[in-house]
Amino acid sequence: MAGLHVRSILVTGSNRGIGLELIKRFIGTPNPPEVIFATCRDPEGSQAQELRTLAAQHPNLMILQLEVTDPSSIKRAAREAEARLSGSGLCLLLNNAGVMPPSTLESATGEDMLSVYNTNVVGPLLVTQAFLPLLKKASQESRQTGLSCSKAAIINMSTILSSIERTPELFSFVPVISYRCSKAALNMLTKCQSVGYKQDGILCAALHPGWVKTELGNFKPGVQADLTVEESVRGLMKVLCKLSEEHHGTLVTWEGNTLPW
Amino acid sequence: MAGLHVRSILVTGSNRGIGLELIKRFIGTPNPPEVIFATCRDPEGSQAQELRTLAAQHPNLMILQLEVTDPSSIKRAAREAEARLSGSGLCLLLNNAGVMPPSTLESATGEDMLSVYNTNVVGPLLVTQAFLPLLKKASQESRQTGLSCSKAAIINMSTILSSIERTPELFSFVPVISYRCSKAALNMLTKCQSVGYKQDGILCAALHPGWVKTELGNFKPGVQADLTVEESVRGLMKVLCKLSEEHHGTLVTWEGNTLPW
Repeated sequence: MAGLHVRSILVTGSNRGIGLELIKRFIGTPNPPEVIFATCRDPEGSQAQELRTLAAQHPNLMILQLEVTDPSSIKRAAREAEARLSGSGLCLLLNNAGVMPPSTLESATGEDMLSVYNTNVVGPLLVTQAFLPLLKKASQESRQTGLSCSKAAIINMSTILSSIERTPELFSFVPVISYRCSKAALNMLTKCQSVGYKQDGILCAALHPGWVKTELGNFKPGVQADLTVEESVRGLMKVLCKLSEEHHGTLVTWEGNTLPW
Repeated sequence: MAGLHVRSILVTGSNRGIGLELIKRFIGTPNPPEVIFATCRDPEGSQAQELRTLAAQHPNLMILQLEVTDPSSIKRAAREAEARLSGSGLCLLLNNAGVMPPSTLESATGEDMLSVYNTNVVGPLLVTQAFLPLLKKASQESRQTGLSCSKAAIINMSTILSSIERTPELFSFVPVISYRCSKAALNMLTKCQSVGYKQDGILCAALHPGWVKTELGNFKPGVQADLTVEESVRGLMKVLCKLSEEHHGTLVTWEGNTLPW
């Protein structure tokens, strides 16, 4: 990770799974960020125990309460982050929080569709709006030319299941209609952000973290859902390190390959 | 239109614009459908006057009240359509109803995002679920091999603005974030439907109707939003006529070209 110098990052949904592992990895880099914001819905709850333990050991880690479907909690978290940054910007925003309930063409309901869209698409939109001033500040502060995660970046956690082109290969194993539709929309949001924020020097990209065991446990046997969270995040860290102008507005896998929309 | 023999069709949002023009065209074909369902939110309202006049002149045209965000109205419309079809299936379902309010990366709100998604994505999902038994029946009744609109088809009205790939060209003129995200999700839904319903012999495709003057009136000067509704629908009718297996699960323009996702 020698190349990844990020002064400040924020990861949503970071009390478990990929989000938590990202926090651990950033803490463990040779040059860790000066400020790491780990957000979760319930910082006092039992599911945030590991995060609280980490925060007690690492003064650069700050836990923020943030529920991506609650605009007021997003705004409050942005104010708290701004205060902690004491005038500096936020370099890397990682919109990781998301949900994937089972749903099929037959079983999908309006409630399911709207709820998943709210968390997986509206959440990243509103979080980005709230933290945009801090991201712009980081970009302006940076002496780097070009786009990178160490200058200023918005990274949206997507999935190979968002790829319309690749749907025929995987649909019968994991239909998850509400999730797929939301993540295709998130890809569109990422592309729009890449166009809208390019002039601000903010890198925007979507990531596919691989098929991680804990997240996609409902796969049928024989399908290669065999990545551990650690393997996935090790790959994601390498990818974050090398993201540049050429990845702006694209969907990149944990192995660094580009996926079709 | 000699090649387009559709025994029965249903078009949502058909009291004006492209929907109304599609109804007129189908009525005017040499071999018009035996049953044409034109749905709209308020069949008694002033905005449905032209549709009511048409229905009074053409016994094969039946107006159904259908609000795509109201599951109970969808189910009632499906029951009424089933009764009218007296045992026959529904050949062509055209999910045309949609909304496109202005929104930018800065101005988009959660309410806007969810409301547009509800109409543009959840609507087509629920309408298709409700009419699926009738579509399957049409497919089973048909002696045709292969996929076509005259056998059984689900056509979702999309847009070039749904193309993630093409977003950089058009974003600055028409950001419409909530609309773009919803239509990218609709493309995903279309692809999922194409995989899920292929075994039932139901053609599934998304259409881009062109940049029609009435609909996209907020374009900046110099952008080619210069199609009339009549020109657009004339093209769409030709496309519907020729859609086949090769178009299954794709996004096709009013001129018959395939767009990237």
